[in-house]
Amino acid sequence: MFRLDELVARLGGVLVGDAGVVVRRVATLEQAGEGDLAFLANRKYLPQLQRSAASAVILAPDARDLLVDRPRIVAPDPYLYFARVAQLFNPVPAPQAGIHPLAAVACAVPPSAEIGPGASLEEGVELGEDVVVGAGCHIGRGTRIGRGTRLAPRVTIYHGCVVGDDCIIHAGAVIGADGFGFAREKSGRWVKIPQVGRVVIGNDVEIGANTTIDRGALDDTVIGDGCKLDNQIQIAHNVHIGACTAIAGCVGIAGSTRIGARCMIGGQAGLIGHLSICDDVVISAGTLVSKSITQPGVYTGSVPLQRHADWVRNFSHLRRLDALAERVRTLEHGHDGRNDRKPD
Amino acid sequence: MFRLDELVARLGGVLVGDAGVVVRRVATLEQAGEGDLAFLANRKYLPQLQRSAASAVILAPDARDLLVDRPRIVAPDPYLYFARVAQLFNPVPAPQAGIHPLAAVACAVPPSAEIGPGASLEEGVELGEDVVVGAGCHIGRGTRIGRGTRLAPRVTIYHGCVVGDDCIIHAGAVIGADGFGFAREKSGRWVKIPQVGRVVIGNDVEIGANTTIDRGALDDTVIGDGCKLDNQIQIAHNVHIGACTAIAGCVGIAGSTRIGARCMIGGQAGLIGHLSICDDVVISAGTLVSKSITQPGVYTGSVPLQRHADWVRNFSHLRRLDALAERVRTLEHGHDGRNDRKPD
Amino acid sequence: MFRLDELVARLGGVLVGDAGVVVRRVATLEQAGEGDLAFLANRKYLPQLQRSAASAVILAPDARDLLVDRPRIVAPDPYLYFARVAQLFNPVPAPQAGIHPLAAVACAVPPSAEIGPGASLEEGVELGEDVVVGAGCHIGRGTRIGRGTRLAPRVTIYHGCVVGDDCIIHAGAVIGADGFGFAREKSGRWVKIPQVGRVVIGNDVEIGANTTIDRGALDDTVIGDGCKLDNQIQIAHNVHIGACTAIAGCVGIAGSTRIGARCMIGGQAGLIGHLSICDDVVISAGTLVSKSITQPGVYTGSVPLQRHADWVRNFSHLRRLDALAERVRTLEHGHDGRNDRKPD
Repeated sequence: MFRLDELVARLGGVLVGDAGVVVRRVATLEQAGEGDLAFLANRKYLPQLQRSAASAVILAPDARDLLVDRPRIVAPDPYLYFARVAQLFNPVPAPQAGIHPLAAVACAVPPSAEIGPGASLEEGVELGEDVVVGAGCHIGRGTRIGRGTRLAPRVTIYHGCVVGDDCIIHAGAVIGADGFGFAREKSGRWVKIPQVGRVVIGNDVEIGANTTIDRGALDDTVIGDGCKLDNQIQIAHNVHIGACTAIAGCVGIAGSTRIGARCMIGGQAGLIGHLSICDDVVISAGTLVSKSITQPGVYTGSVPLQRHADWVRNFSHLRRLDALAERVRTLEHGHDGRNDRKPD
Repeated sequence: MFRLDELVARLGGVLVGDAGVVVRRVATLEQAGEGDLAFLANRKYLPQLQRSAASAVILAPDARDLLVDRPRIVAPDPYLYFARVAQLFNPVPAPQAGIHPLAAVACAVPPSAEIGPGASLEEGVELGEDVVVGAGCHIGRGTRIGRGTRLAPRVTIYHGCVVGDDCIIHAGAVIGADGFGFAREKSGRWVKIPQVGRVVIGNDVEIGANTTIDRGALDDTVIGDGCKLDNQIQIAHNVHIGACTAIAGCVGIAGSTRIGARCMIGGQAGLIGHLSICDDVVISAGTLVSKSITQPGVYTGSVPLQRHADWVRNFSHLRRLDALAERVRTLEHGHDGRNDRKPD
Repeated sequence: MFRLDELVARLGGVLVGDAGVVVRRVATLEQAGEGDLAFLANRKYLPQLQRSAASAVILAPDARDLLVDRPRIVAPDPYLYFARVAQLFNPVPAPQAGIHPLAAVACAVPPSAEIGPGASLEEGVELGEDVVVGAGCHIGRGTRIGRGTRLAPRVTIYHGCVVGDDCIIHAGAVIGADGFGFAREKSGRWVKIPQVGRVVIGNDVEIGANTTIDRGALDDTVIGDGCKLDNQIQIAHNVHIGACTAIAGCVGIAGSTRIGARCMIGGQAGLIGHLSICDDVVISAGTLVSKSITQPGVYTGSVPLQRHADWVRNFSHLRRLDALAERVRTLEHGHDGRNDRKPD
């Protein structure tokens, strides 16, 4: 529970209206009621602003007078301000320090750390202060986990990896499994290449549920500081990801590809191996990236959906687009007799 | 082991032929032998009907006389009838009531529930009668699980969620992890938005192995009664799915999208965020849904595969389809001089 | 640590230069230093060869004289040779025989097997010699695991399945969950079809982290000897995969599809159900396979990515490609009056 002037004292922004109003919760404009603080981050929700029952609203400077009958906090980025208020209202609970009797711990553990039931920590694991290891997690020998990092239940981290400070890793994530590396005999039989690199994860990284990050073959797989990875992402061996890159769910990144800083990769996108993607690239959802990208910008390669019957009619031509183009060239040649170069 | 007349007494249908024949198992036409009950659900398996060694067959009314030398059960939907017979032959085993000594249980548990080894249930968890919690599952504080629901081993359900009655959740599924919600600072740094909504799952829902369903940001993520979700599906925060919708493996659904009732979504399809899909929509496998759908029907947006060399030749034109269309327009203009409107 | 002549004595190849040089590690040309053995498997890394600080290099016969100042091992396939050297340098650790006191074991276990903390093995499980069951694994009743197979932590294998000898299964994999089989009532309600088949996995198979392989509906799901499956692959019920087929991450294979031997399937590819793919087929990354393939070769069906603005301009035409083709036909008809057949 905070008074509006308390919020502004902590988080900045300009308060317009009754500074003593007390808010208990953050909420969307639509769901907000008495005691709630809502926000307008996008003009498309403007109709909801007038109808909202929120006790106060966070607005951008150019929207400050769109609502005049209630107190407002004016901030340059209302969504970012909302995020900070939400953190104030929902602080991360402190670790419940101690080792559960049903955990199997073969290493030293700082007294401030929390080790849940069914967790197993092998020899030589090093945990920082305030680390939380959820129920049923497994951490392999020699892995280091930095201060304040929280593992949800059932996370697996193989041996010899490094996780930085203040990370969050969600349930079912697997860090440091063997990369997919095999050499092929003439017979077709595959010979396994031992995967002796590590996974090295920076500080302030969040990793989603059931995401997998493979250890390097000879060198390391590296996830930079501040990266945010959603659920069910697959990151192959020797991938490097730059700082503050955000990757949405179900993305697959093949081996040895390097991604720059501050990129955003949409859901179900795929990147083939051995590519180099520069900083500040945005990849749209469902796009297969099959070549390196050297210029910042937005890149897309998905297919529009249609009613199935229309799709059948239109997409059948994809199988013979070259023939269609050739026919257009023929028409162009015949048409005026001049155009005898191949136009593409 | 059932006599055919016992089956018909329980499940309906018309029996033609020897009512006293005993069947021990259901089987496909191809694998069936003495003592097996097979079914013909699709005319493409007609050649297998004559060859089958099944002791009896389930047939549709219009197929009842395609086989005359063996007893038949005639039912309007042989596949549905087969499903019900298969349930009779393979009843779900009763829970082995009790709490395994290697489980960590911090809540009250009904005597009829089964809690496997390595499971951990936090404070305030509420389980209905006959719930099965498999080995190594984790259920966070305050989550409620309805009567008769079965969790396979290694399911994780975070705190404060709701699962209805008679659900099945397969191994590795993660329910209620944080949604992917961040606000971005000018520097590119991401600020986490606490995810304070829940996951609310209806009755009679099945959830496949390693599927993930994120908790809502402020509101809830909702899965309707009777939904069937296959393996490795990712459902983001605040998604709503209507009753009896079936979703095949590897589908990704981005945040806040709403899907109607009785939809069917093919494998590896993707839905971007904030869409609205009406009832009774069918999405083909591999289709990216990038806009809302307001009419029932089948929608598709995938690419036909070809031999690689043909694909290279044909798909290179996709990068300059606009130029090709422009050239056709130019030809049309020049051709008869009349056509001076843009035809598309 | 090996002398070069020891390596050649064990693994073959022709040694050129000082036979007594000792190597301690394998490394890439780029990272190699004193005491390292590097390899040149691809001519595109030729510039790195001269710069490399490696103590010795593995070269193909036609490259043997590209480097003359250091000892070389000449072998027909340097990458394959490297794989075997890497196995020599990084032997698989022997199992730490015994059952951890926090494991729940309801079956007989050979003395040579290692059962980690939190693992649960139900009645009738059969393990071969030297099997490793990692922390938190679950093996259902009656499942058999062959000699030398290693399960990483948190693998789930349901009841009644078979895994061959010398397999590796990575963390979070789920073997034998129910296939996605339902019959639909007129109301839209789904009736579950009990999944009573098994998963049968051959020898020398590797299965990646969080990969899922469903049990058969009536028959079995079968993975052939020597198959290599990467992370987050979904294999549906009744799929059959031939020997030595390799499948990259995030691939989905729908029910009852049969894949031949020695196929290679690229990342994020999808195969719809009930297909038949012959031996020696290569599917490119991101390709949706929607029909059977009867000839070996490389098949592709992905979309080239572009800058978003270019994509919008070009891909809008996909929705009306049929109309564009029709306009070309019209132009052809009018153009010379002869061409009155539909050209495609």
